[in-house]
Amino acid sequence: MSDEQRRQDRVPLAGPDIQEILSDPDYPKKLRELFDDLHPYDVFSLIEDLPPEDIAKIISALGKKGIEVFEYFPDEEKKDIFYCFSRKKMVELLEEMAPDDRVDFVKKLPEDLVEDILPLLAQAERNDIKRLLQYEEGTAGAIMTTEYATIPPDITVDKALEYLRRVAPDRETIYYVYVTDRDRKLLGLVTLRDLIVARRTAKIEDIMHRDLIVVRVDDPVEEVAKKVRDYDFLAIPVVDHENRLVGIVTVDDVIDVIEEEDTEDMFAYGASGVVHNYTEESVWNIARKRITWLLVLVFVQFISGAVLQMHSAELQAMIALAFFLPVLSGMGGNAGSQSSTTIIRGLATGEIEEADMWRIFYKELRVGLLVGSILGIIGFARAMFIQQDVRLGLTVFLSMVATVTAATTAGAMLPIFFKKIGLDPALMSGPFIASVVDIVSILIYFEIARIIIMGF
Amino acid sequence: MSDEQRRQDRVPLAGPDIQEILSDPDYPKKLRELFDDLHPYDVFSLIEDLPPEDIAKIISALGKKGIEVFEYFPDEEKKDIFYCFSRKKMVELLEEMAPDDRVDFVKKLPEDLVEDILPLLAQAERNDIKRLLQYEEGTAGAIMTTEYATIPPDITVDKALEYLRRVAPDRETIYYVYVTDRDRKLLGLVTLRDLIVARRTAKIEDIMHRDLIVVRVDDPVEEVAKKVRDYDFLAIPVVDHENRLVGIVTVDDVIDVIEEEDTEDMFAYGASGVVHNYTEESVWNIARKRITWLLVLVFVQFISGAVLQMHSAELQAMIALAFFLPVLSGMGGNAGSQSSTTIIRGLATGEIEEADMWRIFYKELRVGLLVGSILGIIGFARAMFIQQDVRLGLTVFLSMVATVTAATTAGAMLPIFFKKIGLDPALMSGPFIASVVDIVSILIYFEIARIIIMGF
Repeated sequence: MSDEQRRQDRVPLAGPDIQEILSDPDYPKKLRELFDDLHPYDVFSLIEDLPPEDIAKIISALGKKGIEVFEYFPDEEKKDIFYCFSRKKMVELLEEMAPDDRVDFVKKLPEDLVEDILPLLAQAERNDIKRLLQYEEGTAGAIMTTEYATIPPDITVDKALEYLRRVAPDRETIYYVYVTDRDRKLLGLVTLRDLIVARRTAKIEDIMHRDLIVVRVDDPVEEVAKKVRDYDFLAIPVVDHENRLVGIVTVDDVIDVIEEEDTEDMFAYGASGVVHNYTEESVWNIARKRITWLLVLVFVQFISGAVLQMHSAELQAMIALAFFLPVLSGMGGNAGSQSSTTIIRGLATGEIEEADMWRIFYKELRVGLLVGSILGIIGFARAMFIQQDVRLGLTVFLSMVATVTAATTAGAMLPIFFKKIGLDPALMSGPFIASVVDIVSILIYFEIARIIIMGF
Repeated sequence: MSDEQRRQDRVPLAGPDIQEILSDPDYPKKLRELFDDLHPYDVFSLIEDLPPEDIAKIISALGKKGIEVFEYFPDEEKKDIFYCFSRKKMVELLEEMAPDDRVDFVKKLPEDLVEDILPLLAQAERNDIKRLLQYEEGTAGAIMTTEYATIPPDITVDKALEYLRRVAPDRETIYYVYVTDRDRKLLGLVTLRDLIVARRTAKIEDIMHRDLIVVRVDDPVEEVAKKVRDYDFLAIPVVDHENRLVGIVTVDDVIDVIEEEDTEDMFAYGASGVVHNYTEESVWNIARKRITWLLVLVFVQFISGAVLQMHSAELQAMIALAFFLPVLSGMGGNAGSQSSTTIIRGLATGEIEEADMWRIFYKELRVGLLVGSILGIIGFARAMFIQQDVRLGLTVFLSMVATVTAATTAGAMLPIFFKKIGLDPALMSGPFIASVVDIVSILIYFEIARIIIMGF
């Protein structure tokens, strides 16, 4: 067995072992030795299930590495741990945290505590928090960090490398170095790779990339994610409206944004409410998140019932009509689910745009007619088999074509409509679309039945 | 207006402009000037809608940048463009492409063409293709690149930097440098940041990180994505079973994997088939992808119809029973959709594990009983309002509780079951779960009706 294998398979320290160490008066030193070789994420994995007081002790003992470990905890747990620190440690921790994580965390603290601690922080960090606090949730400004490296355009490569050597420990990345003028206006970018490859005496302005892709502080995070993904960047500069560099968003934060967005889309589509920690969430909380949507939907679906009630005469006259209710409303829901997932995902990845609305409508219309006809023929055959009644068969066929076509077009248009009026298209959930299509399908079915079966 | 703004707003060259340039005999030079400042992705965006012959001409004219542009095209279009090249250009292109993209592309070419060209490639590239071709789709081996930088442990920082300066142009990243012994066994890692910060005379083995997180060539890509995301890496080393370094996966490829996985999950959940390019896909193709699932579902839903038919006596006796069919099967579908999206997403992000199965079952059982009771009370009220019949009210109440509970538990268990038998949990689509729950809800409803309404 190789070393690497051994490393992967080794049984991690159990919680009780760590708690035993904590009861030793010399625990800070022991912990430092114990966790010395480990990545902060591994330390986090080892201690995450301990009580907050113990976690706070460990984080305090680990110094700078402790702060990195702290940043891995979800915000709710961060709060619990934070309350276990002394004021002094709170201030130290806030000063050392990465600016983007710090401001996210400060937003979640109670206001009086923030007012209490903020004055104790160093001027630079205090200003930084205040500046970042003003950006709205979901914008580039809210996820950017202010720990980037900048250099002026007129120094040499050698000088730039010397400077980077000095500031490296405080910067989130030194692989992209931004070139700015005296007013912080963004002029260009050099990568560390460029600097390594270039002649030592070359001027930065002669080797820098000038035509930069940037985002604005108020651009939505989806836009940031799309650019970083499309251009394969390690970081993207964030500028204000005067083109001054105010921050950068690094690729690891972009991955988190993408995951977060996709999770929210999926939960929205399933109408299940956002559940980030299913295992820990209480039954009561999960139920509360779900019932909201269900209460809306139950009343929508009562409309289907009411439509049925309006048509009880037809139903009485031919009870076999009822046998096709499940398949019609089911296929409507399915076809709507198919077109809506395709469109919602297309809108999320940027492949589809609202401007294409009418082209999409026309396409879904044709897909619906095609697919609906095939299913309609199957429905016709089934009706003939059950009832040997060509009028019932015809009713089922026509209703299937109409229902499926209504479903594919509505399933595609409703998310686009939501996007147009400025809402998240994924809010147009599968269950909601299915419920709307359900009403339509029952209406269509009984209208057609009235004409064909009763009318003739 | 700032420069940056002007850059963002500038109207890109239209297709006809480029085609005009192509008719000029001096077009290669003109194109090179025109595209000189642009990122390869921007060039791709400008030319992607041109006919393949024109794209081939542009790519040939742009030299090395042309190859980067080529790599942005989807595989199908890559093929069309590739066929427009001369054999010589084909070979040149394959030699210059990034190894991971190259092998993906070669897999999609017809076998006789590959057999034709492969012998013309340089020995190194040929071996590289052959080696990468053997890794299964969906594993770390299939997405890794072989263009990484390695150094021995016993050289100095200065020497390492000198080496990196030389090899930088051919390496996908030089920000992570891997330390290997003579047998390519992975010993450690230094980042370019470490090298910049370290004393020039320090030995690599004294500054390198030893306790590395790695993946195996045959690890699934989800595992790779999870590690890179959790540890905030720019790249992760891929080793074989003897712990020899065989490749790296870079963060930009990981982002693509995450997006791809999430897209597939969403499409699978919507039972819509994977549609990567909705705008370009024909109506016929979209319909073909959707109809497969619908054909399965239509027969599943006929079962619901058959169950109804079995109970036509009850339905005849009390037509009001039919009025609650839509709301019961609808709420079953909705509740199933809620629990299944939560579980599928949890399995995808790794938050939920199959081992938790029984705990999840018990949790969903309680959520279902709670939510179902609330909806059942509403159903009871509605039934009393329509029919003033307490037996109908009771039937609706009990059926709602049973249906919703069956839906939440089945919606959670079916994806886990799929994962257990080695299938993608997202294949357990929303429509399929809704259809299964539909049958169950009708069965429950009429059984309860028979006992309460007919039996008493």
